[in-house]
Amino acid sequence: MVEAKGRRGLVVLNTGNGKGKTTAALGILMRAWGRGMKVVMLQFIKASHHRFGEHKAAEKMGVEVIPMGRGFTWLSKDLDRDKAMARACWEEAVRRLRSGEYDIVVLDEITYPIRYGWLDVGEVIDALASRPPHVHVVLTGRNAPQELVDFADLVTEMREVKHPFKQGIRAQPGLEY
Amino acid sequence: MVEAKGRRGLVVLNTGNGKGKTTAALGILMRAWGRGMKVVMLQFIKASHHRFGEHKAAEKMGVEVIPMGRGFTWLSKDLDRDKAMARACWEEAVRRLRSGEYDIVVLDEITYPIRYGWLDVGEVIDALASRPPHVHVVLTGRNAPQELVDFADLVTEMREVKHPFKQGIRAQPGLEY
Repeated sequence: MVEAKGRRGLVVLNTGNGKGKTTAALGILMRAWGRGMKVVMLQFIKASHHRFGEHKAAEKMGVEVIPMGRGFTWLSKDLDRDKAMARACWEEAVRRLRSGEYDIVVLDEITYPIRYGWLDVGEVIDALASRPPHVHVVLTGRNAPQELVDFADLVTEMREVKHPFKQGIRAQPGLEY
Repeated sequence: MVEAKGRRGLVVLNTGNGKGKTTAALGILMRAWGRGMKVVMLQFIKASHHRFGEHKAAEKMGVEVIPMGRGFTWLSKDLDRDKAMARACWEEAVRRLRSGEYDIVVLDEITYPIRYGWLDVGEVIDALASRPPHVHVVLTGRNAPQELVDFADLVTEMREVKHPFKQGIRAQPGLEY
């Protein structure tokens, strides 16, 4: 940990329907890593077999970016399993938060399991409120519940102005994943 | 370069009054670097003596993140010099774009010299339009001119919903710079 003494950790929330929520969380992770801070990103949706740009980069950097989900779940045929995986990711998140070992804990796409009703927003806020006070937390995902917006210190809405998928251009490796 | 053949490079624009414009550009850079792509970020405002989280990280990664400005220029007493530095940064940008050596070229905070009247938006668009077609470009900064929005493929507005500075909390190293 770096200059953690007396620091008040902030809760940052990146929401909205546009690009850049997870990407900006990665940028925070990169900057903090540059400063020698200890960081971790737990991913609620990306599946454990995924190996996207951020996973390859994290490996090279020696940083933990851990996909713990099953991919986007609206295609899923096994909701009980999805729910159990989201709970397991949440329990891991609570362990990391409570440990006080990290300068920054990123909970990527956590809004989805909350929206699906798999995590209780009150339980999430309680865990954030009772974390060691120096720990910064970054939360990402669309449709953040109002309670999370109210609780967070810094909230940004990534708003889609123009998206190339609508012009028939597919997602680009490196640029988008 | 990675899988560049036949790729149509996109122009990504992160604008708006909220956090995350440069930070998401750093996330793109990190992902692309993870995939072995060649990336560069030229910074129009950050001063060459600055050594923020992104510069420390870039050094560790062996990536070029180059501050070429003089800091925020509304405090400046030497506007001719600021303008000359913005032009020099732009000329460097044109060289990097034209070279075709990069998978991704990030022009960080380029909207400000355009807004200040130091760079002509038509000249910027001409250079983007005539770049080698596989090169992705990421542009950041508030108040993007409409011509840039119209030209870009993917435009996101980072909108400030809540900012802790307004509660008297200062910017946090690692998290914000």
